[in-house]
Amino acid sequence: MSVRLSSPDDYSKLLDDYDTWMFDCDGVLWRGDHLIEGVVEVLDILRSRKKKVIFVTNNATKSRKSYKGKFDQLGVEAHVDEIYGSAYASAVYLSSVIKLPKSKKVYVIGMGGLEEELREEGIAFTGGTDPADNTLEPFTLANFTLDPDIAAVVCGLDTGVNYTKLSKAFQYLTRNSGCHFIATNEDSTYPSANGLLPGAGAISAPLRYALGRDPVCTGKPASTMLDCVKAKVNFDPKRTIMIGDRLNTDILFGQNGGLATLLVLTGITQEAEITGPNPSPIVPDFVTETLGDLRIVERGQ
Amino acid sequence: MSVRLSSPDDYSKLLDDYDTWMFDCDGVLWRGDHLIEGVVEVLDILRSRKKKVIFVTNNATKSRKSYKGKFDQLGVEAHVDEIYGSAYASAVYLSSVIKLPKSKKVYVIGMGGLEEELREEGIAFTGGTDPADNTLEPFTLANFTLDPDIAAVVCGLDTGVNYTKLSKAFQYLTRNSGCHFIATNEDSTYPSANGLLPGAGAISAPLRYALGRDPVCTGKPASTMLDCVKAKVNFDPKRTIMIGDRLNTDILFGQNGGLATLLVLTGITQEAEITGPNPSPIVPDFVTETLGDLRIVERGQ
Repeated sequence: MSVRLSSPDDYSKLLDDYDTWMFDCDGVLWRGDHLIEGVVEVLDILRSRKKKVIFVTNNATKSRKSYKGKFDQLGVEAHVDEIYGSAYASAVYLSSVIKLPKSKKVYVIGMGGLEEELREEGIAFTGGTDPADNTLEPFTLANFTLDPDIAAVVCGLDTGVNYTKLSKAFQYLTRNSGCHFIATNEDSTYPSANGLLPGAGAISAPLRYALGRDPVCTGKPASTMLDCVKAKVNFDPKRTIMIGDRLNTDILFGQNGGLATLLVLTGITQEAEITGPNPSPIVPDFVTETLGDLRIVERGQ
Repeated sequence: MSVRLSSPDDYSKLLDDYDTWMFDCDGVLWRGDHLIEGVVEVLDILRSRKKKVIFVTNNATKSRKSYKGKFDQLGVEAHVDEIYGSAYASAVYLSSVIKLPKSKKVYVIGMGGLEEELREEGIAFTGGTDPADNTLEPFTLANFTLDPDIAAVVCGLDTGVNYTKLSKAFQYLTRNSGCHFIATNEDSTYPSANGLLPGAGAISAPLRYALGRDPVCTGKPASTMLDCVKAKVNFDPKRTIMIGDRLNTDILFGQNGGLATLLVLTGITQEAEITGPNPSPIVPDFVTETLGDLRIVERGQ
């Protein structure tokens, strides 16, 4: 059973118990282009109490650098080294886990942010934003030359997805022996400013279906993302809390990593999903309406 | 256990036992652009013995009329009313099963052949080959107006698939109450002249994944296709044989319809899949190397 936070003491205890605060962004700090009320004050409270603040996002269309622009635009303090994205996690997975040899390349279905993270990790790639592959012209294998150096296909959210990219990726995954199949994240939908659109999981779905094979996913809830954070920052999982709005990504991610979890109701999850007659099997430790609720600890003093 | 046909008597008995012969096309009559040896002679034998000949294809990119062009090009006798395609089956499903009111429309992810079949059944549609939706420009809901008359989304193989089409279809399926989700067929791959490419099932996969919902499929192995044939032609299922190269579409389709089934090995299925240590649970009644083997009944006389 989740603890529903309500009194000033509930929130004060949270501040006492956790030194590292990991946040999902969309649905927690903002919704589309709208900042959620009280978020700036709550982050100020945490920083003033010397809490470590980390932002963990499955958004794979932006690099950490350009994702910081979103914080700046909304007036939320954040530093690039506090931001961990699923595109970065894929790049680190390729460089550190698979240890892709320098002579090998990656075929990208994804956008500039994913390419930027690959470039920063020194990984060569083709596809992605290359105009040659961003086309609706008919694709034929008669004009295709298999590049034997492609050793992995990485899929992120790509609003330029098309049959040429899918067909090329399919060739590499079926014809280059041992070719890795990686997805930045498996979110079924993407919360745009004006409503839900198909998410990164929908972009890798055609390959998943055609191949009858699932990709390795580096975004939440996979622990690959937490491994990236661990490689860069020291923190005690027992004194770390993950705050998110999605049970099957954020909360499960926290639980997979042995972290405490706090669900906020400003995003995709309705309270009925945890208290209703058919509750989710994923039960967060704590629940609160909005991150802004934490302001009560200052008001109460 | 399947019967492996070999002697002239085996093939003669087949000719005696079945009056209606249903054929899958790619992998049975031809492979890509290459006619399989003996096919013309075998069809001549069947026709000369007054057998009913029916062609049942999951190809949804061509209408029956334009699919006949493929037969003509390869010198195989066929008549439009002998050809049944999955695009036609989707159109008939909409007009005869769902009985789509004349005031309602369909959003199409698919190509000209699917549009042609919808048009012939008098079904209004948007999307498809409309240049406005065949674009890689960013899609935003801010510029999108939901058409309340869209009552179904139909997905076929579409080499012009893109994020705008997927996003629009997703809106209709999530925001227009009761909107039907139909796939012409669920083939994971498509056998192009130079090798396998992602199939129609890969085109509907993003929506399937984003929605967490499966489409109604009108192609083989679904019985919708056989219902279409039944509506147009009289035949006795007990004296009908389905000939195909795919176990999970052609052979299953025949079995679902109570037909006898003959597997040929000129397409996707390797003999080891039925005789090897891990045989498929889908067991055809008969197996022969190639359709051309049936020529032996004439030579033997």
